[in-house]
Amino acid sequence: MRMYDVIAKKRNGETLNEEEIRFMIDGYVKGEIPDYQMSAMLMAIYLNGMSDKETAVLTNQVAHSGDMVDLSPIQGIKVDKHSTGGVGDKTTLVVAPIVAACGVKVAKMSGRGLGHTGGTVDKMESIPGMRTTLTEEEFFQVVNATGLSVIGQSGNLAPADKKLYALRDVTATVESIPLIAASIMSKKLAAGSDCILLDVKTGSGAFMKTLEDSITLAEKMVAIGEHAGKKTMALITNMDIPLGSLIGNSLEVIEAAETLKGKGPEDLTEVCLQLASGMLYLAGKGSLDVCRGLAEKTIADGSALERLVAMVEAQGGDSSVIKNTSLFEKAPFKREVIAPKSGYITHMDTERCGIASSMLGAGRVTKESEIDYTAGIALLKKVGQSVVEGEVMAVLYTSREELFTASLEEFLSAVTIGDDKPVAEPLIYARITKSGVERLV
Amino acid sequence: MRMYDVIAKKRNGETLNEEEIRFMIDGYVKGEIPDYQMSAMLMAIYLNGMSDKETAVLTNQVAHSGDMVDLSPIQGIKVDKHSTGGVGDKTTLVVAPIVAACGVKVAKMSGRGLGHTGGTVDKMESIPGMRTTLTEEEFFQVVNATGLSVIGQSGNLAPADKKLYALRDVTATVESIPLIAASIMSKKLAAGSDCILLDVKTGSGAFMKTLEDSITLAEKMVAIGEHAGKKTMALITNMDIPLGSLIGNSLEVIEAAETLKGKGPEDLTEVCLQLASGMLYLAGKGSLDVCRGLAEKTIADGSALERLVAMVEAQGGDSSVIKNTSLFEKAPFKREVIAPKSGYITHMDTERCGIASSMLGAGRVTKESEIDYTAGIALLKKVGQSVVEGEVMAVLYTSREELFTASLEEFLSAVTIGDDKPVAEPLIYARITKSGVERLV
Repeated sequence: MRMYDVIAKKRNGETLNEEEIRFMIDGYVKGEIPDYQMSAMLMAIYLNGMSDKETAVLTNQVAHSGDMVDLSPIQGIKVDKHSTGGVGDKTTLVVAPIVAACGVKVAKMSGRGLGHTGGTVDKMESIPGMRTTLTEEEFFQVVNATGLSVIGQSGNLAPADKKLYALRDVTATVESIPLIAASIMSKKLAAGSDCILLDVKTGSGAFMKTLEDSITLAEKMVAIGEHAGKKTMALITNMDIPLGSLIGNSLEVIEAAETLKGKGPEDLTEVCLQLASGMLYLAGKGSLDVCRGLAEKTIADGSALERLVAMVEAQGGDSSVIKNTSLFEKAPFKREVIAPKSGYITHMDTERCGIASSMLGAGRVTKESEIDYTAGIALLKKVGQSVVEGEVMAVLYTSREELFTASLEEFLSAVTIGDDKPVAEPLIYARITKSGVERLV
Repeated sequence: MRMYDVIAKKRNGETLNEEEIRFMIDGYVKGEIPDYQMSAMLMAIYLNGMSDKETAVLTNQVAHSGDMVDLSPIQGIKVDKHSTGGVGDKTTLVVAPIVAACGVKVAKMSGRGLGHTGGTVDKMESIPGMRTTLTEEEFFQVVNATGLSVIGQSGNLAPADKKLYALRDVTATVESIPLIAASIMSKKLAAGSDCILLDVKTGSGAFMKTLEDSITLAEKMVAIGEHAGKKTMALITNMDIPLGSLIGNSLEVIEAAETLKGKGPEDLTEVCLQLASGMLYLAGKGSLDVCRGLAEKTIADGSALERLVAMVEAQGGDSSVIKNTSLFEKAPFKREVIAPKSGYITHMDTERCGIASSMLGAGRVTKESEIDYTAGIALLKKVGQSVVEGEVMAVLYTSREELFTASLEEFLSAVTIGDDKPVAEPLIYARITKSGVERLV
């Protein structure tokens, strides 16, 4: 088989078979197929697409390019969750404890911040002493003991995806739905859980800017998961405005802990309950309604918070900051953002909010940058709320005072104030299962 | 400017501007843009196309990536000719002397054999002593003295094209009409003539298999030439069967010389007269009919043959083999091809005929292979002629007897014998100028 012929086939809009996809991924990982051939192929896939079958085969090959994690030392059903990334998305830290409190295991590998979106691992590391790198044995032990563990991606997980992603990133072939689906799902298949709940964000702060693209991506991913024998569901959630009120690393841990105490913002609480219900449903805990009830109960009775505390302690973290979030180290500098005029907040560009937070030190400018865990933004007013000129709309936090000027400008450019109260946007747009798309609005 | 954004623009089906194309070609030649980005771009161009304007700008950039030959030391109008390559295509050796005999200069750089098609430079080198590498000064001198010179491509002509072609060749992006047009025309623009006659071959032995594709390619190339201020015309000629009766290097020189003596095969003579008329027309020698008359006269009065002899001598060749072609060294081995059954030759796969000739030693298997100048095929019967079982249809020639078995098999597989006389195919399908397409059939 020659890569030339496989490229020509996809270029001509034909469907690649399993043998051809295996040849291509195998050869690419081994370095036998050069980057310049793979990038021509990626552009052909971008422009000519891939069938569900092709995408499933590609995902499987990419997953099998490295270690396939065997979670069998963990008792019971394991449920994983994936978010396509958003601003202020601290749902993992809320949802995993809820699910664990209902007796379903969460053995999760998470990523670090990328671009304007934060990463769960970075957020967890704002907890003093918290370890996010565990040996496999320790990982299994923590899950068996506490019901959950969230760690950084370790080992040789889907190396083909890393190599492909790096190439897509420089050849303008990232935004291809089959390639995105294969990239996400290959890591989920390799990570070994039995069920997968996908949180596909849509809107200005998300990777997928339109609802229809988000649904298409979700359908592809659910098809891949089910094809691989995993119970898979996706929720399309709103990322047109930041989720919750706090953006930044320790700030988001604080908000997650408060949500587990029943004191979280309404939008974050609702999305977390929906995600947790979905995960419990996939794990066979009953109907979605029954699962919703189970999830709510774990907040009301404090059992979910207890799970988070247990995991933090098991991973070496200081759980006192979870129990009493006022103990978290505070940013030495804060700056109030004053409403420049009166009216309603009609729009909040989520991506710009994320960038502003990153500019304050909450994100990495380069791969090597150190994160300022205390930096971030507290949103006092969100879309739909009225503001009066001179009123404080938000507070910016940082350890480096000189960062305020640029980030304040960025943040202000993200906020639109108008005369009319905007129509409220839904939090959750649709639920996708193997049976199809259920639109919730 | 970032190559990423330029790729994304073409990927989205947008039109690249001059600055973007210059940035891309410049950066690629300098090695600042890596192969993997250029191959993604090439695939995007393959699938999304390029406008005439984009193609013209690309061609110009590729032409200017190296030396631009200045032919001003040669007096008078210079006309170039390009053939997209065929089997048995010895037209340059007939047409250039005709045009020179009419007082129009031909200062031509030619290529070597590629794949199943022969190259004019290889053919010329079958003439004992013939030099095809001249200094620029010698080249100008030969043209000024004899009216014509044909040499191998020298110097740093369109290096971007070499680099791009090598990449296209391994990424399945060769067969893109704008990229083919830019590749051919960049070299023609760099070669410096005032007028360009394009012989676009169509049919089984040609690069372009269909008439419509050939016309599209010709239109693109004429537009590029005219855009660059060159008088440009294209003829679409038949390459569904080999041109003339002889295939191979010295065999084709023999046939060219005989054609200049008025003893050439009808098809070859006709195509050569048409090409020469077109070149003379572009050079302003009168209407196409007038130019045809001029061209015919140079064969009748021997002046065209005289020009060929003069050029051969000026380039150190032994002109006695031109004057008396029986003096050419002959292949030590020949094998007659016997008609396996009676009937009409209904089809002759030109590409396979070319491959059979190449297998006899007339072509290069690898870049380094040495050519057997005596090897080749004499076609005694062509499409439309009747054969009787046992009759000799063709003769194969080689210096290595062991090559007969495989090449005979290849040649026989190229020939189809049927019961019904096939409809004669036209030799020339269309003429394309800046005014449009004139269909001749």
